[in-house]
Amino acid sequence: MGLIRSWVESANAAEGPFPLNNLPCGVFSVGQDEPRCGVAIGDFVLDVAGLEEEGLLQLEGGPLLDVPFWNEVMGAGPAVWAALRDRLTALLAEGSAERGAVEPLLHPLAGVALHMPFLVSEYTDFYAGRHHATNVGTMFRGAENALPPNWLHIPIGYNGRASSVVVSGTPVRRPWGQVKGPDHAMPFFQPSRRFDIELEMGAVVGVPSEGPVTVAEADAMIFGYVLLNDWSARDIQAWEYQPLGPFQAKATATTISSWIVTKAALEPFRVPTPPREVPLLPYLHEPGPMLYDIALEVALQPEGGAETVIARTNYAQMYYSAAQQLAHHTTSGCAMNTGDLLGSGTISGPVRESRGSLLELSWGGKEPVAIDGGTRTFIEDNDTLILRGECRGEGYRIGFGDCAGTVIPALADPYAR
Amino acid sequence: MGLIRSWVESANAAEGPFPLNNLPCGVFSVGQDEPRCGVAIGDFVLDVAGLEEEGLLQLEGGPLLDVPFWNEVMGAGPAVWAALRDRLTALLAEGSAERGAVEPLLHPLAGVALHMPFLVSEYTDFYAGRHHATNVGTMFRGAENALPPNWLHIPIGYNGRASSVVVSGTPVRRPWGQVKGPDHAMPFFQPSRRFDIELEMGAVVGVPSEGPVTVAEADAMIFGYVLLNDWSARDIQAWEYQPLGPFQAKATATTISSWIVTKAALEPFRVPTPPREVPLLPYLHEPGPMLYDIALEVALQPEGGAETVIARTNYAQMYYSAAQQLAHHTTSGCAMNTGDLLGSGTISGPVRESRGSLLELSWGGKEPVAIDGGTRTFIEDNDTLILRGECRGEGYRIGFGDCAGTVIPALADPYAR
Repeated sequence: MGLIRSWVESANAAEGPFPLNNLPCGVFSVGQDEPRCGVAIGDFVLDVAGLEEEGLLQLEGGPLLDVPFWNEVMGAGPAVWAALRDRLTALLAEGSAERGAVEPLLHPLAGVALHMPFLVSEYTDFYAGRHHATNVGTMFRGAENALPPNWLHIPIGYNGRASSVVVSGTPVRRPWGQVKGPDHAMPFFQPSRRFDIELEMGAVVGVPSEGPVTVAEADAMIFGYVLLNDWSARDIQAWEYQPLGPFQAKATATTISSWIVTKAALEPFRVPTPPREVPLLPYLHEPGPMLYDIALEVALQPEGGAETVIARTNYAQMYYSAAQQLAHHTTSGCAMNTGDLLGSGTISGPVRESRGSLLELSWGGKEPVAIDGGTRTFIEDNDTLILRGECRGEGYRIGFGDCAGTVIPALADPYAR
Repeated sequence: MGLIRSWVESANAAEGPFPLNNLPCGVFSVGQDEPRCGVAIGDFVLDVAGLEEEGLLQLEGGPLLDVPFWNEVMGAGPAVWAALRDRLTALLAEGSAERGAVEPLLHPLAGVALHMPFLVSEYTDFYAGRHHATNVGTMFRGAENALPPNWLHIPIGYNGRASSVVVSGTPVRRPWGQVKGPDHAMPFFQPSRRFDIELEMGAVVGVPSEGPVTVAEADAMIFGYVLLNDWSARDIQAWEYQPLGPFQAKATATTISSWIVTKAALEPFRVPTPPREVPLLPYLHEPGPMLYDIALEVALQPEGGAETVIARTNYAQMYYSAAQQLAHHTTSGCAMNTGDLLGSGTISGPVRESRGSLLELSWGGKEPVAIDGGTRTFIEDNDTLILRGECRGEGYRIGFGDCAGTVIPALADPYAR
């Protein structure tokens, strides 16, 4: 399938992130107006809440777009998602008879503010990239213990902090935390000196579940995907994470892209997970390809400097898919809810340039990474980190928009009031 | 301070859990009516939503009780909490002129159903009991590695799953999960054979925060406390928990008591944390006593059998207070919200009979525990586990009500539809 042409001319540009094939879901505001649901199309955002208000869009169980988040649509399930996509495609397609009614609901993207696209219920972060797990395991536990014995059997994950999730563009304040190096007898409380990114994809759960679900059922529950930066304070993490896992090291911020790219838009780009080194238990078997061919990159822009792309990789590098992760998440009977967010785990590839964190890129700080005007081991104050991702179709691309955050200096005294 | 006498005669019984000193917050329903907020008083629940509707109770920013959960009151802060307590105390005190108006809003506890008292935003579980950490550490990692090196410096915690939290009385289905023993080459997917309890207290966050807070500020944010049973599948936990902590082993259910006992009711029972073995960093220093003298017990009742109390301990056994845990939780800048729930960690004492989990009581299954008509290492199907707690004042007690759950058999096939 090639480009679906739209009467929104900018949506037909071959290099643009938001053709009619995409229709990603976001929340925008114009000036001082209240935030509203919209979809990106070319250089515009279409006010879909306005479409619904004006009767141009009717969804079963609606109105579903009269709130400034996508959760009501997400929870409505695949039939509503398909009906919404079909209707928007018809309204925006070249030759649409309804162009005249729709056109006033387009706002230039350059003039809107973007907000959190959905309310996060709970956030789970996984550890499902083999190259990342091997790299980090080697640094934290030595090469002989790099990959934990359970790693090839379980999509290892831990519960993260939903309150940490912020939308692209939100400044991220360098955290304080408790740290202790091997040479010190006692810990210190200080600003993190090894603040890092993790390049991830986030799967957004639409349909809730109560008992265990299969991988196929899990895939059907997923509404779409976002880019996700799991900001990580490595010095805090190293001291706190045994035996119960990362806690404050990961709680400062988790940045997501402003746009949820729907599963329907990603459908042409499905690819299988890599061959298994050891067989998986049947409950993790995939009935079809569940990863996506999404080219990813990380750029670092120092204050006043130019961007440098410091890593390029692909979501297809993951060992476990989001559907496998979600199925595993439900094995215990754990209830999943609309708005649950599942981080993929850091997406590193096999070579240095494809590593998805500075911890790996600089090999624990030992091998600085070249950037515009200098080098980096970990993030410095006022650096901006930008994740980008896109699928490359025939004559069109599916983009996610930027997932960006600038690290601002730590508080001088976190308890000053 | 002794018993505050009430015109509700059953509230004056010396052994009763719900004197006027207590006024715990719950959500109840009568017959097919919608759930409403209430407080327990003697053998009754007082319909406080009704008090507000009828103008007998006016809270700043109200109405706050027109919803079937306490979150609006919890988020309103200490001045509203104090005003509510003062007003209810006046309405219910012996000699109250308003008895006639209040009395029709009393419902016998025996005739109501109790529901979740608040909406859980996020759930964090700690590991702050020294005897428990030492016992479990010894079993999982050997005596020489029992207490992790960070344990005396950090209130170790991990994020749990809010969707797992259920109210007392909710049946708990034995989970399936991935397990592997040391003698097996490959893991199995099967129902848990080592399903366990953890006796904990839960601190309920009322006032939200954004940046780091001091221990004193954290204490002021806490609305009250519940009993909490952190159901744990030990076989799943042992295989999955390295390196990122417990995940599905803890996601089946987390049972809380039906009543939130407010901090005001617990005030007379404050006790300090134990002496520090090594000094804490200043951000964890406590300005005053932050634990409570709460006598706790665990009872096990097999199907058709009698209850046996299998453990007796006290919340004062904890090494870290909930205020310290909450302060630590915010160090990274992690935002805390109204409805966040913090599990204390398992509350074990120094002797076998004071251990707060079957894992410890049976020492990993090696030393069966005597119960009515038999023994237990871990929980068997149709066993009911009941946590109870109370503070013993002069001439009165502060009770929490039962925190109970019956374990029902695992699904025969978790994927049958």
